[in-house]
Amino acid sequence: MRGFGETVDLEAALARLVGAVTPLPAEPVGIRDVVGRVLAEDVASGLDVPPFARSAVDGFAVHAEDTFGAAPLAPNELVVVGTSMPGTLPERALQPGEALRIMTGAPLPDGADAVVMVENTDAHGDHGRGARAVRILEAVPPGKHVGRRGEDVKVGDVVLAAGRHLRAADVAVLASIRRATVACHRRPRVAILSSGNELVDPLSDAPAGPTTIFESNGYHLEALVRAEGGVPTRLGIIRDDRDVLRDTIAAAAAEHDVVITTGAVSVGQEDFIPLIVRELGELWVHGVSIRPAHPAGFGRIGEALAFILPGNPVATYVGFWAFVRPALRLLAGRGEGSLAPDRTVRAPLGRKIASQPGRVDFARVRLADDGTVEPVRVGGAGVLTTLTRSDGMVIIPGDVEGIEAGESVEVILF
Amino acid sequence: MRGFGETVDLEAALARLVGAVTPLPAEPVGIRDVVGRVLAEDVASGLDVPPFARSAVDGFAVHAEDTFGAAPLAPNELVVVGTSMPGTLPERALQPGEALRIMTGAPLPDGADAVVMVENTDAHGDHGRGARAVRILEAVPPGKHVGRRGEDVKVGDVVLAAGRHLRAADVAVLASIRRATVACHRRPRVAILSSGNELVDPLSDAPAGPTTIFESNGYHLEALVRAEGGVPTRLGIIRDDRDVLRDTIAAAAAEHDVVITTGAVSVGQEDFIPLIVRELGELWVHGVSIRPAHPAGFGRIGEALAFILPGNPVATYVGFWAFVRPALRLLAGRGEGSLAPDRTVRAPLGRKIASQPGRVDFARVRLADDGTVEPVRVGGAGVLTTLTRSDGMVIIPGDVEGIEAGESVEVILF
Repeated sequence: MRGFGETVDLEAALARLVGAVTPLPAEPVGIRDVVGRVLAEDVASGLDVPPFARSAVDGFAVHAEDTFGAAPLAPNELVVVGTSMPGTLPERALQPGEALRIMTGAPLPDGADAVVMVENTDAHGDHGRGARAVRILEAVPPGKHVGRRGEDVKVGDVVLAAGRHLRAADVAVLASIRRATVACHRRPRVAILSSGNELVDPLSDAPAGPTTIFESNGYHLEALVRAEGGVPTRLGIIRDDRDVLRDTIAAAAAEHDVVITTGAVSVGQEDFIPLIVRELGELWVHGVSIRPAHPAGFGRIGEALAFILPGNPVATYVGFWAFVRPALRLLAGRGEGSLAPDRTVRAPLGRKIASQPGRVDFARVRLADDGTVEPVRVGGAGVLTTLTRSDGMVIIPGDVEGIEAGESVEVILF
Repeated sequence: MRGFGETVDLEAALARLVGAVTPLPAEPVGIRDVVGRVLAEDVASGLDVPPFARSAVDGFAVHAEDTFGAAPLAPNELVVVGTSMPGTLPERALQPGEALRIMTGAPLPDGADAVVMVENTDAHGDHGRGARAVRILEAVPPGKHVGRRGEDVKVGDVVLAAGRHLRAADVAVLASIRRATVACHRRPRVAILSSGNELVDPLSDAPAGPTTIFESNGYHLEALVRAEGGVPTRLGIIRDDRDVLRDTIAAAAAEHDVVITTGAVSVGQEDFIPLIVRELGELWVHGVSIRPAHPAGFGRIGEALAFILPGNPVATYVGFWAFVRPALRLLAGRGEGSLAPDRTVRAPLGRKIASQPGRVDFARVRLADDGTVEPVRVGGAGVLTTLTRSDGMVIIPGDVEGIEAGESVEVILF
């Protein structure tokens, strides 16, 4: 059987996809490599941070009561009995009438319940160092400038919850509780194949003929998959030979979580790929009412998701953005909340974009210097540089005939 | 000399920094590794893309004149003389009265100047294959459905200009013109040192005592530097010994573009680092009227930029964001336009944030479910989890006493 089974709309295609994708299993990951990964466990702390009460400032640890009534013109004098430095426990408890010089982060001695900042004593500046007494110039309540034990994290606290998309500060928190590894969803392994007899790998030594097109989709997809946290494997250019294509796709599906093909996806004479996916597995969607990327489709081969994208480079990109990107995020455990565009900006359209109702258009646009959104191209799926000359895309819904100049549009930034 | 030279405001500190940083020199980079890098050359194409006129659709290449007057009820019949497939030049020129079956992306034969979509012929569907004649059902003007030679890129076109922050589509364009490497600014090599006798490396085997703080800043900075495109080297925890610190910092500065230290930065007894930077080079700024991170500073040691950040983990982050991040972007060649926050959102403040005039506050905030911005903490520079419990920061300018509930604020998203 040839031809599109049934062209579906974008929303239905996405719903079909979202319903079919579950997060990949967990694996242990060292905390230095977790940024961008999704946590697959609740991480609870085995310790208090800090493990002792500490001073938040440079100053003097005191019994708060000993400062009551103190003021610049009526200081309370206390006996200085030493210094508390970070990394060392004070030797003995602080007695009433005593003060212990203390540095930021150093442990409070037993007995002390507050710290007076050095600025509020007569020891401010070098001259106070080594002095045997200090005059306290302000009254402080108990707890003042003290970071209590467990102020940051308490034993048993869940510091990071399953499902969290990890960022740099999370690495710091894991280090602070001495966690070396955490369970994260596996990164999707993605095989990338390009099909087309006109294609030559630009990074190979192969000679170019008068009909050569240098293959760009594989390198484009490799970069896009990596940006989405996937692990890409470029399988290169496969000749438009049905047996070779089938064997290559079957082998790729057995060893990857996702297979992406470009080209040979329409209903032309050499467009074998939809047939092969049907043969090896299931093709859930083939043909979506979007432009470009109308012939795109997806399904499953064994455990792998298979995406068949058109070979026109802009269509490849739109197909990736519309279908592969959501799938990669869901596989990585990021959840449906992650499917919205990452960065958008609203601005008025500088020039009308026409669009055919019944079809969702992905228009490439530029942010012009005058603050308006300038359409670059709606069609032109074969013109790759329309992507690099644009700053983003505007999605034109299927139920309108276009967008008039002056209307405010949301630009999905590249 | 001890103590802060002169506390400067944030704007003045940034201006001092921006004026002092120039982009790093260029190096050749393979196109598979250029995403996130900044181009240091104009890239001009040595070829036309496509290198031949091609069909944008599946259909029939024709002399446009031969279609004039054609309509569904008055078709023009042409003789089918073969098929043009991608990757092969048609054997001979098309004569008037002839049509050549042609696939999307295949070369037009000489003589042909337009393509009729297969849907607008009587060859739609399988039954037309192999037919010796085709009925054309619509008139097409010259150029219809033809991608002319060089439609995407012409020989000599600058496809990407120096200064461009490269993204995935740029990789594709470079592949399409067979460029294997391009000149990019070198990535900043960044040495990271932490100072503090209380610190233990959480990923080491070192035993923990009652006063141990597990070092997190080095791992945090490592992740932050990487996210900014730098190449981090964690030199670990250096003991608070003036000679060891000086030798380590001097060696790090000789081999890196940037040295970041955390801790020992204030004016306390063991706060050697500002003194050491002054000794080895220049300390341009020490003390900025921001909270947290007030004791932060920066300068130069030889060719390296040196950033001295406070050891309190939130202050380390704010110091990184305010000073190191801009420096890394400028070193990488991204230019002053890149210094604005990457992702922001505007929402009303749910609860007042108080702030001391004369100082810029970085308040950590959460996006609450009711759509308001919930302050998490302004102070608490020692409480790392205030960063992980927040979604972003609000910067409170120095000339206000705070922001009232209900006012719209811009949240810089993490």
